[in-house]
Amino acid sequence: MSTYTPPVKDASFVLDQLVGLDQLCETLQLDEVNTELATVIIEEAGKLASDVLAPLNRVGDEKGATVADGQVQETAGFADAYQQFVENGWATLTGPEAFGGQNLPNVIGTAVNELWHSSNMSFALCPMLSQGAVEALIAHGSDELKAHYLPPLISGEWTGTMNLTEPNAGSDLAAVAAKATPAGDHYKINGQKIFITWGDHQMTSNIVHLVLARLPDAPAGVKGISLFIVPKYLLDDQGQPAELNDVSCISLEHKMGIHGSPTCVMSFGDNDGAIGYLVGEENKGLSYMFTMMNHARQAVGLQGLSISERAYQQALEYSQERTQGSRKDGSKIAIIDHPDVRRMLMAMKAGNEAMRALAYRAAADIDHAHQGDQAAHARVDLYTPIVKGWMTELAQELTSLNIQVLGGMGFIEETGAAQHYRDARILPIYEGTTGIQAFDLIGRKTVYDKGAALKALHADINNTLTQLSASDSPQLALLHSKLKTALTHATAAGEWILENSASTPHTLGNVSFDNLMMMGYLTGGWLLAQSALLASQLTTQDNPYGDAFLQGKIATACFYAEYFLPRVSQHADTVLTGLSSTFALTTEQMQGA
Amino acid sequence: MSTYTPPVKDASFVLDQLVGLDQLCETLQLDEVNTELATVIIEEAGKLASDVLAPLNRVGDEKGATVADGQVQETAGFADAYQQFVENGWATLTGPEAFGGQNLPNVIGTAVNELWHSSNMSFALCPMLSQGAVEALIAHGSDELKAHYLPPLISGEWTGTMNLTEPNAGSDLAAVAAKATPAGDHYKINGQKIFITWGDHQMTSNIVHLVLARLPDAPAGVKGISLFIVPKYLLDDQGQPAELNDVSCISLEHKMGIHGSPTCVMSFGDNDGAIGYLVGEENKGLSYMFTMMNHARQAVGLQGLSISERAYQQALEYSQERTQGSRKDGSKIAIIDHPDVRRMLMAMKAGNEAMRALAYRAAADIDHAHQGDQAAHARVDLYTPIVKGWMTELAQELTSLNIQVLGGMGFIEETGAAQHYRDARILPIYEGTTGIQAFDLIGRKTVYDKGAALKALHADINNTLTQLSASDSPQLALLHSKLKTALTHATAAGEWILENSASTPHTLGNVSFDNLMMMGYLTGGWLLAQSALLASQLTTQDNPYGDAFLQGKIATACFYAEYFLPRVSQHADTVLTGLSSTFALTTEQMQGA
Repeated sequence: MSTYTPPVKDASFVLDQLVGLDQLCETLQLDEVNTELATVIIEEAGKLASDVLAPLNRVGDEKGATVADGQVQETAGFADAYQQFVENGWATLTGPEAFGGQNLPNVIGTAVNELWHSSNMSFALCPMLSQGAVEALIAHGSDELKAHYLPPLISGEWTGTMNLTEPNAGSDLAAVAAKATPAGDHYKINGQKIFITWGDHQMTSNIVHLVLARLPDAPAGVKGISLFIVPKYLLDDQGQPAELNDVSCISLEHKMGIHGSPTCVMSFGDNDGAIGYLVGEENKGLSYMFTMMNHARQAVGLQGLSISERAYQQALEYSQERTQGSRKDGSKIAIIDHPDVRRMLMAMKAGNEAMRALAYRAAADIDHAHQGDQAAHARVDLYTPIVKGWMTELAQELTSLNIQVLGGMGFIEETGAAQHYRDARILPIYEGTTGIQAFDLIGRKTVYDKGAALKALHADINNTLTQLSASDSPQLALLHSKLKTALTHATAAGEWILENSASTPHTLGNVSFDNLMMMGYLTGGWLLAQSALLASQLTTQDNPYGDAFLQGKIATACFYAEYFLPRVSQHADTVLTGLSSTFALTTEQMQGA
Repeated sequence: MSTYTPPVKDASFVLDQLVGLDQLCETLQLDEVNTELATVIIEEAGKLASDVLAPLNRVGDEKGATVADGQVQETAGFADAYQQFVENGWATLTGPEAFGGQNLPNVIGTAVNELWHSSNMSFALCPMLSQGAVEALIAHGSDELKAHYLPPLISGEWTGTMNLTEPNAGSDLAAVAAKATPAGDHYKINGQKIFITWGDHQMTSNIVHLVLARLPDAPAGVKGISLFIVPKYLLDDQGQPAELNDVSCISLEHKMGIHGSPTCVMSFGDNDGAIGYLVGEENKGLSYMFTMMNHARQAVGLQGLSISERAYQQALEYSQERTQGSRKDGSKIAIIDHPDVRRMLMAMKAGNEAMRALAYRAAADIDHAHQGDQAAHARVDLYTPIVKGWMTELAQELTSLNIQVLGGMGFIEETGAAQHYRDARILPIYEGTTGIQAFDLIGRKTVYDKGAALKALHADINNTLTQLSASDSPQLALLHSKLKTALTHATAAGEWILENSASTPHTLGNVSFDNLMMMGYLTGGWLLAQSALLASQLTTQDNPYGDAFLQGKIATACFYAEYFLPRVSQHADTVLTGLSSTFALTTEQMQGA
């Protein structure tokens, strides 16, 4: 079984150097919050993650949740762990103080969430979903709903769920068919929802379902969807969970991974109709969902980093223990000293550090945007599909490399390497598939603003290039050369997209995936080049990291530049073809006829 | 559950047009064998594959083999299927006539094997391993051993296994520790072997284990390994299985995939010592293994195609049934009409056709090489690590795309998409990991012959470029342009490798993976460009394929050129960096210190 050690030093470096956390906290007027405090928080979270959650990860895989009589029984041990999670206040980190939260910046919450997902992604999905419900209520709930539901959701006493998908409404939510019928001060909800993460469990005294449904007279399509709160237990006069609502889990999915996370088919209103309360205004449900979307999608992208970090740690440990082959003096060679194994380990390390840099920067930009920073807002919009799309795709490759380092043992379930790989496979699917992210990036985030956010990013990268070119270090020169080549290709591809966006109906769609991956590798390489610049400057100063760590950052950036940055040109080359053959075949021809 | 339809038309096209099967059969002096017969054989095999084996695939996944008292019980239904397989003569296709085989060319066996692995890879591993045992005995067994063991192995009445790996001897077989002690006309074998595919089962009356072991006075390392036959049941005077030998399966691995294929820990000689018979001469076991290696590695590469073809068929079917979104007229849009889904389907189709072209060509070169064709022999040596390494790596991506097309349903085990993905994950590991293939390709197959085989391949590709440039078709012009760019980059990378092979101890190892992938994408693109050329010529002639099929071949080649060929330049770019940062970090730095 794989163990887990929180990557405190790199997290701290990214927060301090790349994010500029101290400055951010000043902007946010959080006097006592800074990188030092954040590092202590991460270290503290690391204890729960390593000691309690990580050992439960494989337990959840082997003995997932079960369902009987509409009630889900989660994996043994999860309830105790959740209790510790709540008692130590981890659910409250980023919640508003008015409702019991600690009001910490989103980026600190993100850095801590990385640990939860590394140690036990199935478990951590539960508080992650609660956080989504909290955000929806903060943004759109009435004062009464907030008063009743926010404090126990923020404390973690209750958990929250998001009920969007139906059998015929997946990527296209316009097809949502669940019904909401007005009934006095509330609504009766009827319908079935599928793929509901942590839709039921016994860890808390209540569960707060956020449900998309359609009013009787609602317009068709996305403009007729409303958002409701449907508590598992209706509240009594004291606001305490009392009578069971007409909602139940009718089955659990048998999935390839995340077995510890119950994926529920939820039935609302099998009997009288489930009692629900409207959030905000009627018919605005989908737009409310969109307000949470940046955070939720970044959270899933973060899971890509988390599970890849865990996989890297396992591969790195195994590669030091396992020997194959001998030296001339008879001593055994640990496989970490085999070049192709070292290549895989470096790919994992470099990929993870690039993802961490991007995830934290994007998370901090949410904090900046909340302060009204319009440039940060534009960056959040641009980064979010990259964080979600690229990071979850890269996680497939990096968790696969862990299996490859372990060889035959990687394919054996006992080692846990297979679990990380199986668990990771959901990431490019849920919370908007890679295809959805890719189209969001190329359409709404690139063509729609006429490339403004894209050009701002290119300008930022050019600034880094200027800084790199001022150095006489061969390593920074290498970074400059590789990043410049990548930017040149990406710029050409971006211009092609803006020029050709209207040429044929499918042009944007055809090349959207390659554009997404191109942007991901480019952004990751840029942030690692920045890290190397900062590390290089720090080596001449008194610093808390030490030369070995800083040199490690620089060399890791170089590996990324040699190994991953050529993919920018590759994807750009494909974008520039327009993938003109995508629709060249009929269905019969695709069948080989 | 996914169904399976054999890709008869493309198989026939590749055999006739790309392989030149009719000419090959003339060379082999097989008068009545030709593409027409091969197509009939493939169609006939397709019935067993589609009707019997394909439905058992998920059964094997859900209820894998079990072990009790040293005996393995295979999945219910497998024994009946195996019986049909044997009764219909499928085990005998390529065996020599003298021992009951049909003496068909290896390339026809390969085309048929594609179907077995597509329909049920776990099942098909059993005859695949038997084939390895047959080859070893034909090449190195005494007349007596051949007479006793070949007829029932070739008929399929018995099955064979390969016992190489031990807990401390995986990629490095020099560490084999199993012992063989001379005892009159036989040897006593003692030791444990792991990862033994189909090491035991109840489908046949005997199992013939080929076992690597070390004689008491054997030299250390690879020069002291001998090869033995150890039958599960010792033969009586009539050559019939009689007394149980001292060999048993002591446990089965709990694997991520191929659950239907029992992966055994085998114990030899727990009591008296298992009785074994020397194959060939003492201490030559490893070199004997190498004589079978090209075929065995190509067989695993073929599995990469097989499972990707099955995955493609599932994705293609689902994409026509599943709708998301509506047109303005209210009609539902099947997801096959969403550009990013179409991109994924085309990537699978193009990847599969490139793999099929390469697999069959490489298989046919084994036939040519058996006739003493030295150029073909050199091609087999060069192609084999590409077939094994690149095709199994590409299979990871293509089976993952199937899951992605299915979206949430792809993550649910019931659809079977997850099984294809899980099953495929073993392919880059067994029969020599990708790292082993990559080092074989860059070392023994490139540097060792001073690039002779590589340059011959480049010359072949240049010939195709010349043919392409003679056409005025825009599609062939596109293929010419993309293939030329790819070849230019690959040539530069190849020259770099030859020039820098001795520069640092790790240079070749560092870039070996990128070289392998570069060679794979290049070779695949070249063969699809050839296919397009041939298809283009055929459209003006009377031909059995029809214009739609031929146009499909051309457009698929174009998609490959736009989507996959840019990866040649990407991997070449990485090769040209030498991945100089691979060994830049200490272990402590890799741990983030």
